[in-house]
Amino acid sequence: MADDVAEKEFNPAYWSWGQDATAPRSLFTMIRTLDPEASIRFYTEGFGMKVLERHDFESARFSLIFLGFDGYGSGAIELTYNWDQTEPYTHGSGFGHLGMGVPDVHAAVAKLEALGAKVPTRPKQMVAGAPFMAFVQDPDGYRIELIQTNRNS
Amino acid sequence: MADDVAEKEFNPAYWSWGQDATAPRSLFTMIRTLDPEASIRFYTEGFGMKVLERHDFESARFSLIFLGFDGYGSGAIELTYNWDQTEPYTHGSGFGHLGMGVPDVHAAVAKLEALGAKVPTRPKQMVAGAPFMAFVQDPDGYRIELIQTNRNS
Repeated sequence: MADDVAEKEFNPAYWSWGQDATAPRSLFTMIRTLDPEASIRFYTEGFGMKVLERHDFESARFSLIFLGFDGYGSGAIELTYNWDQTEPYTHGSGFGHLGMGVPDVHAAVAKLEALGAKVPTRPKQMVAGAPFMAFVQDPDGYRIELIQTNRNS
Repeated sequence: MADDVAEKEFNPAYWSWGQDATAPRSLFTMIRTLDPEASIRFYTEGFGMKVLERHDFESARFSLIFLGFDGYGSGAIELTYNWDQTEPYTHGSGFGHLGMGVPDVHAAVAKLEALGAKVPTRPKQMVAGAPFMAFVQDPDGYRIELIQTNRNS
């Protein structure tokens, strides 16, 4: 670290993503949410993700919530919740979706639909011999591609 | 798999994401790109990611390129390249950014800037004792948060 003062004030609470890494890695994908409790329920109950960290910034009126399967480094999600936001966030044409592997796409869609998810693409195979896939939408409308990762489900 | 015919036609080339998984996992974040060669250069030369797979669909005129550090399951990126797209993709207000850990944020920003990246937020600490962070933009304007993951860089 270049700044000696900051080094002296080292606070491990801020170093969740690593202190001794020797190479770059992916940490998370950040998306904004209007309703963090709905998003947390969708990703924890729907996929089995865990809340890794949650930080609520009272004076700046926003929260950051990190969701992951196994800590960082395995495709975590950062939810940003701006407390005063009322308009739904818009989806441009650039960002597409999050890809999630699930053992059984039919079962995953049934579970997510029971949690209220829209299912714009029902389970299908793009070509014969390929895994089943589907698209669902999270509570803010982000698209999630589900790809079957078990041949015997 | 529910469909016996499809099971008989099992083609391992389509099962890159797992055949015997027992739990969900994150696989990738999909973003669309106007210039796949520029994007590939940005993520491979800038971060050390590798091209895991590339599929060019001649008749449908699009390509899918998967970039990762260590296969899938560690935060891969899927680039979608629509061959006939000429208008830049738009960035809505929902999707925020990709978070990447780098050992040395100052060095990473210098390297990415040399590759042509814009740097909307130069290296700084949000609070004393926290890792340096910065924001850069990839060739399509997607924001990448860089977070320092080594205390001694």
